[in-house]
Amino acid sequence: MKGEDDVNTARKDEEAEGSAGEKLLGFNSTEEQPSGPRGQDSMWRNEKYETVPLDVKGIDEDNSKGTTDSLYPQTALRKAQQGSDRPKDAKLSPYFQDGLRRIDYVLTYHVQKPQSTHKQSSKSCLCCRRNRKNPPAHEDPELAAQEQRLDYHEDDQRLRREEFEENLREMGLEMEREEGTKIPGVGFLKIHAPWEVLCREAEFMKLKMPTIKKYEVSQGSSIVEKVNTFMQKVTAPLQPKVGENRMENEKHLSYPFSREKQHLFDLSDRNSFFDSKTRSSIVYEILKRTKCTRAKYIMGISSLLGSGIYTEAYPVHDGDIDGVNAETNDRKILYEEWASYSIFYKYQPIGLIRKYFGEKVGLYFAWLGVYTQMLIPAAIVGVIVFLYGCATVDDNIPSMEVCDERNNITMCPMCDRACSYWKLVTACGTARASHLFDNAATVFFAIFMALWATMFMEHWKRRQMRLNYVWDLTSFEDAESQPRAEYEFHVMKKSLKKEQPPKAGNVKLTCTDRMPAYMTIIVMMVFLICVTLAIVFGVVLYRVSIMTALHMSSIPTVRTNIRATVKTTAAIINLIIIIIMDEVYGAIARWLTVMEVPKTDKSFEERLIFKTFVLKFANAFTPIVYLAFFRGRIIGRPGKYIYVMGSYRMEECAHAGCLMELCIQLCITMLGKQLIQNNLFEIGVPKIKKLLRQRKIDKKHQEELNKTLHRHEKDHFLGPFVGLNPEYMEMIIQFGMVTLFVASFPLAPLFALLNNVIEIRLDAKKFVTELRRPIAVRAKDIGIWYTLLRGLSKVAVIVNAFVISFTSDFIPRLVYQYMYSPDGTLHGFVNHTLSYFNVSHFQPGTEPLQPMHLGYKVEVCRYKDYRDPPWSDTPYQFSREFWAILAARLAFVIVFQNVVMLMSDFVDWLIPDIPKDISVQIHKERNLVVELFMKAERGKKYRNTIGDPSPQPLRSRPSSQA
Amino acid sequence: MKGEDDVNTARKDEEAEGSAGEKLLGFNSTEEQPSGPRGQDSMWRNEKYETVPLDVKGIDEDNSKGTTDSLYPQTALRKAQQGSDRPKDAKLSPYFQDGLRRIDYVLTYHVQKPQSTHKQSSKSCLCCRRNRKNPPAHEDPELAAQEQRLDYHEDDQRLRREEFEENLREMGLEMEREEGTKIPGVGFLKIHAPWEVLCREAEFMKLKMPTIKKYEVSQGSSIVEKVNTFMQKVTAPLQPKVGENRMENEKHLSYPFSREKQHLFDLSDRNSFFDSKTRSSIVYEILKRTKCTRAKYIMGISSLLGSGIYTEAYPVHDGDIDGVNAETNDRKILYEEWASYSIFYKYQPIGLIRKYFGEKVGLYFAWLGVYTQMLIPAAIVGVIVFLYGCATVDDNIPSMEVCDERNNITMCPMCDRACSYWKLVTACGTARASHLFDNAATVFFAIFMALWATMFMEHWKRRQMRLNYVWDLTSFEDAESQPRAEYEFHVMKKSLKKEQPPKAGNVKLTCTDRMPAYMTIIVMMVFLICVTLAIVFGVVLYRVSIMTALHMSSIPTVRTNIRATVKTTAAIINLIIIIIMDEVYGAIARWLTVMEVPKTDKSFEERLIFKTFVLKFANAFTPIVYLAFFRGRIIGRPGKYIYVMGSYRMEECAHAGCLMELCIQLCITMLGKQLIQNNLFEIGVPKIKKLLRQRKIDKKHQEELNKTLHRHEKDHFLGPFVGLNPEYMEMIIQFGMVTLFVASFPLAPLFALLNNVIEIRLDAKKFVTELRRPIAVRAKDIGIWYTLLRGLSKVAVIVNAFVISFTSDFIPRLVYQYMYSPDGTLHGFVNHTLSYFNVSHFQPGTEPLQPMHLGYKVEVCRYKDYRDPPWSDTPYQFSREFWAILAARLAFVIVFQNVVMLMSDFVDWLIPDIPKDISVQIHKERNLVVELFMKAERGKKYRNTIGDPSPQPLRSRPSSQA
Repeated sequence: MKGEDDVNTARKDEEAEGSAGEKLLGFNSTEEQPSGPRGQDSMWRNEKYETVPLDVKGIDEDNSKGTTDSLYPQTALRKAQQGSDRPKDAKLSPYFQDGLRRIDYVLTYHVQKPQSTHKQSSKSCLCCRRNRKNPPAHEDPELAAQEQRLDYHEDDQRLRREEFEENLREMGLEMEREEGTKIPGVGFLKIHAPWEVLCREAEFMKLKMPTIKKYEVSQGSSIVEKVNTFMQKVTAPLQPKVGENRMENEKHLSYPFSREKQHLFDLSDRNSFFDSKTRSSIVYEILKRTKCTRAKYIMGISSLLGSGIYTEAYPVHDGDIDGVNAETNDRKILYEEWASYSIFYKYQPIGLIRKYFGEKVGLYFAWLGVYTQMLIPAAIVGVIVFLYGCATVDDNIPSMEVCDERNNITMCPMCDRACSYWKLVTACGTARASHLFDNAATVFFAIFMALWATMFMEHWKRRQMRLNYVWDLTSFEDAESQPRAEYEFHVMKKSLKKEQPPKAGNVKLTCTDRMPAYMTIIVMMVFLICVTLAIVFGVVLYRVSIMTALHMSSIPTVRTNIRATVKTTAAIINLIIIIIMDEVYGAIARWLTVMEVPKTDKSFEERLIFKTFVLKFANAFTPIVYLAFFRGRIIGRPGKYIYVMGSYRMEECAHAGCLMELCIQLCITMLGKQLIQNNLFEIGVPKIKKLLRQRKIDKKHQEELNKTLHRHEKDHFLGPFVGLNPEYMEMIIQFGMVTLFVASFPLAPLFALLNNVIEIRLDAKKFVTELRRPIAVRAKDIGIWYTLLRGLSKVAVIVNAFVISFTSDFIPRLVYQYMYSPDGTLHGFVNHTLSYFNVSHFQPGTEPLQPMHLGYKVEVCRYKDYRDPPWSDTPYQFSREFWAILAARLAFVIVFQNVVMLMSDFVDWLIPDIPKDISVQIHKERNLVVELFMKAERGKKYRNTIGDPSPQPLRSRPSSQA
Repeated sequence: MKGEDDVNTARKDEEAEGSAGEKLLGFNSTEEQPSGPRGQDSMWRNEKYETVPLDVKGIDEDNSKGTTDSLYPQTALRKAQQGSDRPKDAKLSPYFQDGLRRIDYVLTYHVQKPQSTHKQSSKSCLCCRRNRKNPPAHEDPELAAQEQRLDYHEDDQRLRREEFEENLREMGLEMEREEGTKIPGVGFLKIHAPWEVLCREAEFMKLKMPTIKKYEVSQGSSIVEKVNTFMQKVTAPLQPKVGENRMENEKHLSYPFSREKQHLFDLSDRNSFFDSKTRSSIVYEILKRTKCTRAKYIMGISSLLGSGIYTEAYPVHDGDIDGVNAETNDRKILYEEWASYSIFYKYQPIGLIRKYFGEKVGLYFAWLGVYTQMLIPAAIVGVIVFLYGCATVDDNIPSMEVCDERNNITMCPMCDRACSYWKLVTACGTARASHLFDNAATVFFAIFMALWATMFMEHWKRRQMRLNYVWDLTSFEDAESQPRAEYEFHVMKKSLKKEQPPKAGNVKLTCTDRMPAYMTIIVMMVFLICVTLAIVFGVVLYRVSIMTALHMSSIPTVRTNIRATVKTTAAIINLIIIIIMDEVYGAIARWLTVMEVPKTDKSFEERLIFKTFVLKFANAFTPIVYLAFFRGRIIGRPGKYIYVMGSYRMEECAHAGCLMELCIQLCITMLGKQLIQNNLFEIGVPKIKKLLRQRKIDKKHQEELNKTLHRHEKDHFLGPFVGLNPEYMEMIIQFGMVTLFVASFPLAPLFALLNNVIEIRLDAKKFVTELRRPIAVRAKDIGIWYTLLRGLSKVAVIVNAFVISFTSDFIPRLVYQYMYSPDGTLHGFVNHTLSYFNVSHFQPGTEPLQPMHLGYKVEVCRYKDYRDPPWSDTPYQFSREFWAILAARLAFVIVFQNVVMLMSDFVDWLIPDIPKDISVQIHKERNLVVELFMKAERGKKYRNTIGDPSPQPLRSRPSSQA
């Protein structure tokens, strides 16, 4: 029989290549059967784990329970695979030792490091327990006793593992075990799901699989078709070369897999019918369902992992990414056509990403792609707005007036005593600079960006729907996941405390149980937000005090550079604090969520995300919010300043408003955060971690090892997949930066765009090369992140309304032009914004020490505010202009908010959530399914009439016989 | 054979009771076979339509294609039904003539009224066509020719019908025909779906049916359980006695019906496994799918109905509602326990409503119930707020000041020339009255109602989810429906114009085709909204002109009652116009939507609803919006009034603001609209229609007929079901009234509550007694109406913010109290709101004719506005107070809107959409299903090992044989 020969050859090749320690038990049994008690142990093992019987033994009875050999004889399998799929080289590809059965999942566990005396037994450490009971005679009994104590815990763990694996076997999975071979101290349990198990589970999971029926995907009308073809040609160089993302005119009709409807599916190639991602997720599904029941409380896989009975659980990668002789595999294609900086301008091969990593990861990258794509127009418009500001800076009447030396305006001092009066003309530079960010185009840009955000959400919804259709998820429902191990543990503790037997599902954590955790969370969250506020206030104090100190300085160069120095240092301090606190808050949020003990993984994730989001968001945006809305507003007025901490006057804005400073702060935060976080945390830290993991192995063997390592061993050295949340979180904060204060910083989309182009490839590299393969999770949408994005884009409308109306001088200019200007222009605007102050009204001790600084005696100085002059009936009261402008500002906020929200809702309503062609296709698919079944129906009836027996309705037969 | 005897007996009874004309063809064939050519015709018919063969004939071959007799022999059917279900009396229950097969659906069509000479042939009018070709000799050839021309059209229709019915028969349906018997000119096609068809279609439709597996519905923790039990006891008298709405502790596990998994379902009683609603919807599903292809273009059932080939299509009611001897049926129970005013305080039997009318109707009544229930707290709080206003009316400082005669304030005249100065004290009554609706509690109530609206939406979402769970709709997906007949017709016209053969699905209406319709719609909508505005403006003009005219009048009693008269007449005119235009707009919206030719029924409905909503909403609310926000705001000031239409001054509000008038308008609109629409349109019109329909029959026979009519004939006289949209629309407008201007009219929820309590029973009566049974439509939610409700409750927040800040005097009072009041109270507020006017500044010709009316010479009069006095530098300019108050008003709007929106979102987020227990149950159900299948799996495997042959995978067998 040729098939067996192949197997044997493969095995022998394997052994020839070294790694003597990794002998598989199954093979041991054939080779070493006559070698005494160890051989017997192996036999016992073999019966348990080696479910594909070797030919010398034939099909053993015990196995036929687990696997349905009658349905799928092994010989047939061999024969079938013989032709196209020769047994694979187990080193490159993830296969069992026989080179036939694919490793779909790997569980690792801790085994004792082999001692030199134990070399023999460590080879197949499974039988350790039995060996312990009959300790070899040549060993020191004391040492053995010590070992026994140490091993008690390990024995317990092994028992659990055995029970669990027994249960897995009962579910039909096949396993192979490999202990402490190349990587000392680590045992691998390789899991393979045979065809019947895959079919059964696919049916339970209602996996939609392609049927043999193909249908034409209509491209809409002929015009649409032409446009599509044209677009395809134009974007051809932007498409990655993965050979599958061409627009296809045909699609396989998909239908939930069912063994009873096997005739519908193309099962000609069983090895590729379920791809590796699906196989591993099926195994994972079984793992999740399987429980250890003999222990004190029921343990699922998550509990087993949590309590260290197993250490890791992961599916294996498809193959290697480098090496010329490496076989072509999806991972390699992804590495070449996706995870490379040199092709940053190309589209992502989303289909392949989904095929390899599953829908959830695919959706993340699709979302990131859509976001980056959508940033292009935003960046272009932002640059245009900025350039418009640059171009009109010389025509801007207010800054011209400020810079005009003929307007001999004397301003009140900037600080008490140390500062003196100053001429407005010295603020010429900032006035000109602030025009760049504070002009009419800004308002347009804010509206544009609000609509942009809506368009982005809509575009994404449609893209998501399209992907759902292409990925056959349209009727997929997200099942609620199993309770988490921690939750079950707490439930058990509770039921033990009550001294009731834990009835299945009847005991649960109520509000009362959770109250302490909830209270802690609320207190902690409030406390942390207070910390954030305190930090901002600290930075403000730093600025105020340094400013005062520097003003006192007598060195003139220091004094001229005061503002620049203070602004820059303060912004950098802010940045550093933000980055540090980001990590701290992330850790605290996780700790709080663990304390909360949410029931399911899904709710754990949601709660964690929510907390992290609140904290990180507050951390990133509090300084900016302070700058935008509070700075310079609570300073009082000359003669009646507001003081903090005794004698520090609150900081004022520069003459032209705080918008300029807000802009600088945003720019530093955004650039700095992205550069540092990307470089340090995303590139540096994983590298270090990987190095650390590999350092555990002897350095000298490392090189050599790397060459001989098997797939699942290589994967063991990769970092575990920790979920997409950090990636999403980073992007959401960036989205906040781009939309929230965009009115003050039109270049934000550009910076975001540049960052994201790199980010995509960075993440891609990480997923392909640095991390273990994630378990493919089906998902229809991006979940809570969409809600957060929606929330942000709503908040953005309000924030931008306030920035335009309160932070910028847009409204005062408008009011002046239409209500007060004598000639309808902005001439005289600067004068209008300045109120008068009689210097004799200074509080004693706050007058400038050098009143004659400007060379003449000042009697009335000016300050920026709308207040009545000293000579009116109500001196220094807010003037009528103040109230009128305030009303105008508020009216603008209302109008802006409601108009933009209405426009957004209108856009939302106008663009259907499901693209027209997709809804047509879905409808078509439904009809085709019915058609297909009606045809099958007729076929069946025909067969019935010619006498083929078929299952009959339950009742009719007996009654007709009666 | 006893079964047949029964059939025969039933038939004979039938005949004995008269109605000689309704002999069924099938029976004719047995009885009258030897009676010449007519008998042969009947035979031919019989082969076509009588699919259950009579025993004398045996199973005929042709039939075996349509029905799967091999699976379900007729004898077995008879035997099975013989015991429990004797053939039903066809008069009361909807059964075929054999009394065995249920009528699941009825199609009617027009037949020629039998002439006396044609009596013979009219008995079985089916053979008319053949008779025509060989006209009986005794007929006048001229008459025959004329008849032939007339009948050509009818022949064509008959051909279509025959083709369609042939296709239906091929789908396995069984039919019985009855022409022109008791109701002349109407032919009935009674359709019955046999068991196999039901099973097949249920499988295609993925109908979830209860399996034999029951499981315990856990009630949550023990406390929750106790509370539930207690609540159940308390509400017991409120529960309708339908014997099924007790909280059940067990629920059947449901699973999509599949013939391959028949063992899962309890099929012991096949007659009741699919209830009558499901049966008729299954038949409807087949009808929708069946096409006539031989005609010029493909015609579905909707085209056939549209072109008059069939006239009506409806399922039949379960039975009669009155008569002591009437059998108990669901309809009767509904009539007694639901559609009765005397049990208005009880809950509705939603489960039974759903069981009888289907999910869509069930959801409407569930929604109406939830809405009504939620109105109870709103009404209570509203009444309390109103009572608070009543109680504090005497403590209200502003109205005390108005009423205090010592404040001798002289007001400027209300109109030019005719009116004179007046004393503020005369406005005492309105000032006191307006306090009822304009006090601090109003603000609270507005916030309360905004949150109430959110709570209502949330509550409904949860209720809906709960119903989805109970009704097994959790995984139901709404399939897109078939194209409408009109759409197909237009597509055909287009393809004919292009002279291309109409490829299936390739020709469709593009934007270009629809452009004319779209343009018309936009123009019409704009025009209609302009009409609405013009009507409001017209009413304003009416008020202004009448007011001026009455002021001119010299009769003192007229002059004192001026305001009351004008207000009341104007409000009534408004009401009448609203009610008339409501009907007009409804008709126009339908016309516009028909013109638009939407593709599917769903989009037709949505577009129609949208248009109707916009128009009806504008119609109902424009007068109210005008009153709330525009009236009294654009009047100018004394000496510089704004005039419209030459010389009419715009109307002012009463001294205490327009809130009072807004309140009156709302009250009249709401009460009047509901009373008139309920009484006239919902009770009166259907009664008249029914009378008209029955009048077509000879009056003298009517009484007699009513007694002998069959179920499907009785249903024919009922009104057709026209959808739930008018019902929903009415409620949505009411919801608008309740939420939009609730700040000005806290009694609105009470009125709505009273109306709805009646409305529920009114609608119930209509559905149970007046209308034909609707086709049961599965629906998970209330669709577009939910979106509209959400939209309304959002708009309500903004509208209420504006009403409080601009229409009421709440903000000015607050500003006065905290900014201007010398002692922090409202004393002096009235004086503060009044500006001064120097009477010498009147424009010439506008001074009062009787300046000495008050008995003294007036030099300065007062008017309600914030303007500078005549003696300031800027006389009659808006004062600083004006701007300050405006700013405060606007700030309030911003704060109110955002705070309430935030609170709503928070409530939305806080309350999970899926109730906790339901999500637990759903999860449990999923697990149970997997468990059930795993058990079945093991059972199957066991059977496999003992050698039972089973379908094998496709590939393995041949290769193993090779």
